[in-house]
Amino acid sequence: MRAITLPQPGGPEALVPADVDAPTPGPGEVLVDVVAAGVNRADVMQRLGHYPPPEGASPLPGLEVSGRVAALGDGVEGWTVGGEVCALLDGGGYAEQAVVPAGQLLPVPSGVSLEDAAALPEVACTVWSNVFLVANIQPGQVLLVHGGSSGIGTMAIQLGKAVGAHVAVTAGSQAKLDVCRDLGAEMLVNYREEDFVERVRALSDGHGADVILDNMGAKYLSRNVDLLATGGRLVTIGLMGGRTGELDMGVLLAKRGAVIATSLRSRPATEKAAIVAAVREHVWPLVESGDVRPIVHSRHRLEDAAEAHREMEASTHIGKILLTT
Amino acid sequence: MRAITLPQPGGPEALVPADVDAPTPGPGEVLVDVVAAGVNRADVMQRLGHYPPPEGASPLPGLEVSGRVAALGDGVEGWTVGGEVCALLDGGGYAEQAVVPAGQLLPVPSGVSLEDAAALPEVACTVWSNVFLVANIQPGQVLLVHGGSSGIGTMAIQLGKAVGAHVAVTAGSQAKLDVCRDLGAEMLVNYREEDFVERVRALSDGHGADVILDNMGAKYLSRNVDLLATGGRLVTIGLMGGRTGELDMGVLLAKRGAVIATSLRSRPATEKAAIVAAVREHVWPLVESGDVRPIVHSRHRLEDAAEAHREMEASTHIGKILLTT
Repeated sequence: MRAITLPQPGGPEALVPADVDAPTPGPGEVLVDVVAAGVNRADVMQRLGHYPPPEGASPLPGLEVSGRVAALGDGVEGWTVGGEVCALLDGGGYAEQAVVPAGQLLPVPSGVSLEDAAALPEVACTVWSNVFLVANIQPGQVLLVHGGSSGIGTMAIQLGKAVGAHVAVTAGSQAKLDVCRDLGAEMLVNYREEDFVERVRALSDGHGADVILDNMGAKYLSRNVDLLATGGRLVTIGLMGGRTGELDMGVLLAKRGAVIATSLRSRPATEKAAIVAAVREHVWPLVESGDVRPIVHSRHRLEDAAEAHREMEASTHIGKILLTT
Repeated sequence: MRAITLPQPGGPEALVPADVDAPTPGPGEVLVDVVAAGVNRADVMQRLGHYPPPEGASPLPGLEVSGRVAALGDGVEGWTVGGEVCALLDGGGYAEQAVVPAGQLLPVPSGVSLEDAAALPEVACTVWSNVFLVANIQPGQVLLVHGGSSGIGTMAIQLGKAVGAHVAVTAGSQAKLDVCRDLGAEMLVNYREEDFVERVRALSDGHGADVILDNMGAKYLSRNVDLLATGGRLVTIGLMGGRTGELDMGVLLAKRGAVIATSLRSRPATEKAAIVAAVREHVWPLVESGDVRPIVHSRHRLEDAAEAHREMEASTHIGKILLTT
């Protein structure tokens, strides 16, 4: 099959289309004929050599796909060959076929095309696990989403709004902020022009943020902690602004706050399956009702994965970038 | 009534015995004739001027007492005048009488003397709220308690053991570690002689700590994070080692860990009442069965509060220091 390989770390050109052996599903696994694969920031990190695949995962990049079930491994029940699915992968999505543990498969929500469904699993699972399961956002609370126009950001805005949270976002242009507003964000901060701490504090009448979904890490650590409301939770899922920062535990203690850093990919299969099941239960109905929709910025052919990565690194996209087979 | 006042911040001599007006219980409050008051590190911080009482609290120090109900404010049910009680206070325990919201009263557990009961509320509520409600310790997990021989430490060891956790402690002398071992600690670290990260990692077969109850803050931040197991939770409740430290969010993210800083005193009354109710439900039966007992190091007359503070600051005590009226 055709796949995007990564012979050695490097720039976008390190992604090399090649013919490789198709994977075979082991017990409890499903083989999927890939129709589309989502591109994630984590794939860029993996390409750069900063984010090695977890043990046992495919060395090929790609954390989510949509497609049709091609074969079932031993013991798999509840799925049929030919069925339309999307899936959260441990890796290997940049390929014509991918293997996935059955617990990480999802049906394609009604009203979403098979291709667009590839835009959902990673962002839905990331947002649900972090904003809901880890940070336990509640109706009426303030949720700040950094990078509101990213794939994860656009999902976080919609899910936050759907549960009655007041959503604040940061983004780097008015065009991006306009999309965030249309998706339901109430508080908009252009981080190039304004200090997000001051601005969100003012827009929330001094309350601050109950939950912050952060992808910047060290660069925003102090400011994020400053902005937390009493009992607030900072959940960092990316380190685009570096890893080591200063933490004032006196400020954190006065707020009774939490700083949590986590990732979806490194979780064991049982936890991923539990998250996928929760997404199917809580998020899929919102997608099927139209309250939450996949936001797709662009589509590239699988062979052009390098171009897709260049686009992601330019950070001008709004929503998800897909690869299609 | 006699009470220990704090005309201005300073050393132990800043605690001045004086005659003051007795407090009167408002609606929902109870007046207690104090038999004994527990001395806490927070009282020392308040004396030094670093920990002002929360709004509405008595300016007098003292966060826990035992004694007899002297009067009931309007609307209080379930308590009778003359009944033996202990209580978690917002302040004002260093006195012959103290007022407490009814939700923060506890009965004296059977088998515990009325005087010794003053050693229980603050440590039981602190440990239960932080190790159980916030950090959600589970049977079989590793709980590291810094300052294992402190009042909070001796309670954390006993409660950790009672729920089937493997308890590790740090302390500064062999005598203190001996007491910790007798209370149920399995892993003992003399922090003056050994690196606690190396030692606990070795003693836990490389696992690390699932929960760390920390009173040092900045000084231990990096090492505590290093020692966390996957999914581990660091709960800091004191800043004896300073407030601002370096946090490697890359390490935290790889562990999917949490850094939480919190305090009991600053919580609103509804949260305190919920914690007290949980302590009565979960901790009191363990005290009555003898699995958990108050560890009292010394007793001083209320008038000698300064002496009690000198003793606490010398840090040679093991367990609680009490003041008796």
